[in-house]
Amino acid sequence: MARDGDGPRPRPKQSDIDALIAELKEKFGDRASTSLAVREQHAQGFSFHDIMPADVVVTAKSEAEVQDIVAAAAAAGAPVIAYGTGTSVEGQLAALAGGVSIDVAEMNNIIEVNAEDMDVTVEPGVTRKQLNEYLRDTGLFFPIDPGADASIGGMAATRASGTNAVRYGTMRENVLGLRVVLADGRVIHTGGRARKSAAGYDLTRLFVGSEGTLGVITAVTLRLYGIPEAISSAVVCFDTLEGAVNAVIATIQWGIPIARIEFLDEVQIDAINRYSKLDYALKPTLFLEFHGSESGVKEQTERMGEICAEFGGGEFQWTTDAEQSARLWQARHDAAFACVALKPGSGAMATDVCVPISRLAECVLETRREIDAEGVVAPIVGHVGDGNFHVAFLIGPDDREGDLKIAGRLNKRLVERAIEMGGTSTGEHGVGQGKMAYMPLEHGEALDVMRDLKRALDPDNIMNPGKIFSL
Amino acid sequence: MARDGDGPRPRPKQSDIDALIAELKEKFGDRASTSLAVREQHAQGFSFHDIMPADVVVTAKSEAEVQDIVAAAAAAGAPVIAYGTGTSVEGQLAALAGGVSIDVAEMNNIIEVNAEDMDVTVEPGVTRKQLNEYLRDTGLFFPIDPGADASIGGMAATRASGTNAVRYGTMRENVLGLRVVLADGRVIHTGGRARKSAAGYDLTRLFVGSEGTLGVITAVTLRLYGIPEAISSAVVCFDTLEGAVNAVIATIQWGIPIARIEFLDEVQIDAINRYSKLDYALKPTLFLEFHGSESGVKEQTERMGEICAEFGGGEFQWTTDAEQSARLWQARHDAAFACVALKPGSGAMATDVCVPISRLAECVLETRREIDAEGVVAPIVGHVGDGNFHVAFLIGPDDREGDLKIAGRLNKRLVERAIEMGGTSTGEHGVGQGKMAYMPLEHGEALDVMRDLKRALDPDNIMNPGKIFSL
Repeated sequence: MARDGDGPRPRPKQSDIDALIAELKEKFGDRASTSLAVREQHAQGFSFHDIMPADVVVTAKSEAEVQDIVAAAAAAGAPVIAYGTGTSVEGQLAALAGGVSIDVAEMNNIIEVNAEDMDVTVEPGVTRKQLNEYLRDTGLFFPIDPGADASIGGMAATRASGTNAVRYGTMRENVLGLRVVLADGRVIHTGGRARKSAAGYDLTRLFVGSEGTLGVITAVTLRLYGIPEAISSAVVCFDTLEGAVNAVIATIQWGIPIARIEFLDEVQIDAINRYSKLDYALKPTLFLEFHGSESGVKEQTERMGEICAEFGGGEFQWTTDAEQSARLWQARHDAAFACVALKPGSGAMATDVCVPISRLAECVLETRREIDAEGVVAPIVGHVGDGNFHVAFLIGPDDREGDLKIAGRLNKRLVERAIEMGGTSTGEHGVGQGKMAYMPLEHGEALDVMRDLKRALDPDNIMNPGKIFSL
Repeated sequence: MARDGDGPRPRPKQSDIDALIAELKEKFGDRASTSLAVREQHAQGFSFHDIMPADVVVTAKSEAEVQDIVAAAAAAGAPVIAYGTGTSVEGQLAALAGGVSIDVAEMNNIIEVNAEDMDVTVEPGVTRKQLNEYLRDTGLFFPIDPGADASIGGMAATRASGTNAVRYGTMRENVLGLRVVLADGRVIHTGGRARKSAAGYDLTRLFVGSEGTLGVITAVTLRLYGIPEAISSAVVCFDTLEGAVNAVIATIQWGIPIARIEFLDEVQIDAINRYSKLDYALKPTLFLEFHGSESGVKEQTERMGEICAEFGGGEFQWTTDAEQSARLWQARHDAAFACVALKPGSGAMATDVCVPISRLAECVLETRREIDAEGVVAPIVGHVGDGNFHVAFLIGPDDREGDLKIAGRLNKRLVERAIEMGGTSTGEHGVGQGKMAYMPLEHGEALDVMRDLKRALDPDNIMNPGKIFSL
């Protein structure tokens, strides 16, 4: 798929790149690789953007090493792209102008857990599952769950969220502080362990979501939460999407502290029924989860049942049985696999938008109508409490280019509709290359302010150039 | 009190100022005032910093007018300082290099309420009480409550919070979007009405807490919440501060969604007993509030009672009676008045810090010890769920300069201690002039990054110069 937006910076001279590679190989030995397979694997992510490999991949084991690599790249005028688990979905990892891919996956130490303060500081390569396994004995957990077992550094860089952001927030709310290596070699810390601060500019939030374009994250301090005493899950289907969305709106207005409230449309339900051997009715459906005390969860669940009934919900099946719950959420987490199984040999091109919840039903329904009019299969699933939903366009295997063309057309209409409704081009996947073309429509002159900030911190545009916006 | 930190930019030439005043008077008539009383009133706030008036105060009635004033000031090389209610406490309003004070108090329209989406967009001069009165019929409310009836624009600019941030967050979490007039006359919108977004740099959070140094806020979009079905309040005293803090830690780890958890030390309790004619025991005390359903509130309150008993709490008095609750919280909100009443004719110099909660007891106790060693009266009160607490130093009337000297010395030790404990120099008051001297210690090289950002957006340093940091 072609890149959206303008071209990135020019590539450095090949002689400078050759010298840089030699320098990195001398310093890092086998940890500096120019193998095409390695370079391609580090440039890919989960997307259909062109694979544009860096000139060299270097595995860093410490912040000091990241600093050395950035310094060497900067001296050669070469771009730097940080790599965690390679699970970003908007082409964030492509080395559009070559340069160095810094693999931080081996920087995966948990630096410090402060159980009383309910915070943790980790190296950027720690994954969310690794973190939660480590935390298990503390009675604490980290809630943010994008589909993949992404690295915490990558999740911070893309401002990730997931199914329980409606209760616990996104990376925006849950990163307390960062350490970052800047383009000019400075290492800074931002934020801190205090729960709030009014001491100067909020640099933490500036770096969260900047997709590697302002610096390389070398440590992340996160908020943690107590593992809830009780959890219940529920499933309820509706005759209409409006009914489901109105139930969600009422739930949030009532202040029910629901932990997960996931919408699956008929096409997605069909997909998971087939994939996970379930037999849900082919209707707009909500998957729900409640966290709290035993009696609190019971009360929340019962009240939610009443609300759903009021808005035309069908039978309200709920459980506190861990195994039944796990089966439900496994099916939800397997939604992407279930999608591609609808069309064997295909891949899923995922997009996401987020709109004010009052416009959600309308936005989903128009999207569904347009998808059906194109005659393609594309399930819709959403973190509906936030007004955030995803469409998975199935690409290939028979007509990859044709499928991409249709998906691109539908995606364009979807994004423009979301922005027109007061929403955003992406709720949680980030801009990367895929949403760049929509930034002027969404941000207007504020996009130039973003460029001003980028130029202030990275005047030579070496930090992941050609992502979010062109300079 | 002398300013901390380096000096601000130089003043413009007087002839340029004279021409600017003439231009503004011609355009705004009586709304451009050079009266000394008006200028001093707009330069003051609630602090003991020197009153340094702007050259002219202009009352703006629209964003377009703000834009005109900024353009005129920029052309004259004159500073611009936005004014809402004049309730900031760290000298944010002083016109250190003269210029124009833009009074936005009359920009107090509520632009749009979206009840289904639970958001509202207001002009910057709307105050928090005005907003909540307006919202009453919608069943929604805006929770952030700094002591004063501050303007929403000012609260955004200083990243304000208050007693219920532990449940609802601060302005950082509750501002969804802004409109801002920049130094070069551009008007931008940041963020939007979607609950989350991964579309580019988080400009909203950059402007929130920037204290007018990056632009003038002309509209704010806020998150709202449903008015809770039930509210209960409770008071409990402890033999020791550690007991109170450990009860708070346990409460938060249990995930009890407490709405307010305020600490008052013995000196503060003595002050409110006298001022509000109450008879609480002179011990470390927690004031608590719970929001939720009828049964949820009952459960939270009872569980909190058990936790307090476990950590040495005394009798746990709780109520759902609105009048009794109102009396309790009125006493809490009158804490500042109660303080100054301890020493008739004095004023309170308020400071605040925020530390990781595991260090809170130690930080408060050392602070109390140092205050007592100086032989001065200074109550301590805190938003203890966040690790945030305030000291009110009583200044004057007998020895104003001597009192300020002692307060400055104690404040310095307090702030350095908080930073050394992994905390921050200010949890909610902002930096202004009062905390500038501590920014290098707190932020290290990141302070230079803040300067880089400031220079990128305001190269001539006309936006509230000499606050947060010197350039």
